[in-house]
Amino acid sequence: MKPVSENKAFGGVQGVYTHASNACACDMTFGLFLPEEAQHGPVPVLWYLSGLTCTHENAMVKAGAQSWAAEHGLALVFPDTSPRGEDVADDDAYDLGQGAGFYVNASQKPWAPHFQMWDYVAEELPALIAEHFAVDMTRQSISGHSMGGHGALTLAMGLPGQFRSVSAFAPICHPTASEWGRKQLGAYLGPDESKWTRHDATLMMRETGFDGPILTDTGTGDQFYELLQTHALAEAVAKRPQQAQIRLQPGYDHSYFFVSTFMEDHLAFHADALYA
Amino acid sequence: MKPVSENKAFGGVQGVYTHASNACACDMTFGLFLPEEAQHGPVPVLWYLSGLTCTHENAMVKAGAQSWAAEHGLALVFPDTSPRGEDVADDDAYDLGQGAGFYVNASQKPWAPHFQMWDYVAEELPALIAEHFAVDMTRQSISGHSMGGHGALTLAMGLPGQFRSVSAFAPICHPTASEWGRKQLGAYLGPDESKWTRHDATLMMRETGFDGPILTDTGTGDQFYELLQTHALAEAVAKRPQQAQIRLQPGYDHSYFFVSTFMEDHLAFHADALYA
Repeated sequence: MKPVSENKAFGGVQGVYTHASNACACDMTFGLFLPEEAQHGPVPVLWYLSGLTCTHENAMVKAGAQSWAAEHGLALVFPDTSPRGEDVADDDAYDLGQGAGFYVNASQKPWAPHFQMWDYVAEELPALIAEHFAVDMTRQSISGHSMGGHGALTLAMGLPGQFRSVSAFAPICHPTASEWGRKQLGAYLGPDESKWTRHDATLMMRETGFDGPILTDTGTGDQFYELLQTHALAEAVAKRPQQAQIRLQPGYDHSYFFVSTFMEDHLAFHADALYA
Repeated sequence: MKPVSENKAFGGVQGVYTHASNACACDMTFGLFLPEEAQHGPVPVLWYLSGLTCTHENAMVKAGAQSWAAEHGLALVFPDTSPRGEDVADDDAYDLGQGAGFYVNASQKPWAPHFQMWDYVAEELPALIAEHFAVDMTRQSISGHSMGGHGALTLAMGLPGQFRSVSAFAPICHPTASEWGRKQLGAYLGPDESKWTRHDATLMMRETGFDGPILTDTGTGDQFYELLQTHALAEAVAKRPQQAQIRLQPGYDHSYFFVSTFMEDHLAFHADALYA
């Protein structure tokens, strides 16, 4: 693992690191914010998964999360959204291939050799970070935006016990019923839709739910509102019933201006769970 | 004036607008954050001038200022750092020409026809914003980063009565004694150094000072520390003596991670002056 940059921020350090990933069979880059408290001992960890077209960098510079992470003494991890490189398969569309890993392990050509983002985020990157930094991996929570909100919800429900709380900004809630989902799950996992179900937050909510609190924020002015299928998750949460806050925020869109507006709430929400 | 984008943010609106500038003789783009309070009446205004290579956009998306502006009910203006366009003179260097206007009115070829950033920020843009938005131009303050810190300090001291308070992040404090200054002032204003003095915060501090409070933050780990000449301004402030806080922040560099870390303090500082 090599440092790319380390900048002092909010009393802690915002770092960027690269490493050779076994899961993705390429070099991967991630951002890690460590609060000042990490100089004295392991701190809880909040994962932040980004959306389509993003790298590790977008949320790291635009979401305003470090301010609140510093206040609560939390580490923040910003993984990339896919494998990268000239040898890695790609597609001309913005929503498939590099920048669009969808947090699944691809089984189909040409994606399978590198697109193993579930294993990368669920196993490889946590182990790497635990090895090199002062983090307490018994206290992890997860969040994300759009495709990353899908990732956060499905990882949280798919890995019972790993995360104490999950939140999401404008998450893709029901990808098996959306153009943001059917295309990618078909490409990465193949046409057998039974393989898709453990990558659909609404279906997982119907099946198992999450053993902890959930918070989602979605703007009523989101330009991609129909693709998110928020109503399906809301219904599944209420039917279960699952401990959750499904919030619709008047007039907000899909941008980082929306994300940063509610970041303070999300960090406070996760801090409550991580310090409980 | 045309809207480029308007995104709801922190209860208010982050807008981007373009207009034909008379001062710069080209189209200019600026960002404007209006807090929720602007829906009910005019709000005070904080100007934020950006540094070398920046457009209106960098601070707007990376400095985290809107959160605190919303808390204090302040508008934020993010002007561009120079005229732009194919017909506008430029230079291959990152620190001259487009993206590097230095907040002066150029008198020299090839810059004079468009590079009139002092007039643009001091007169044209305030008038335009006052005409179109719910802002109270009797309550203005100004801030900026690096070259923009230079701009904020020199505009504040050069326009007595226009700004109630001035702050800066890692400002270029003494451009007539720095490679970040001599090159640009020479190019834009010509070799007669007597024309440079009203664009040097240290010289202006020695001469006139500022009728209000000043706050500057500079990182001790700033990679451009020698270019900033912070010691010269600090000495001039102390000699005057001028009401001011000149703060050196341990370990911080020149990046937006540094800027965003201390943004909360700067917004509170300006709010104190604007609501006094």
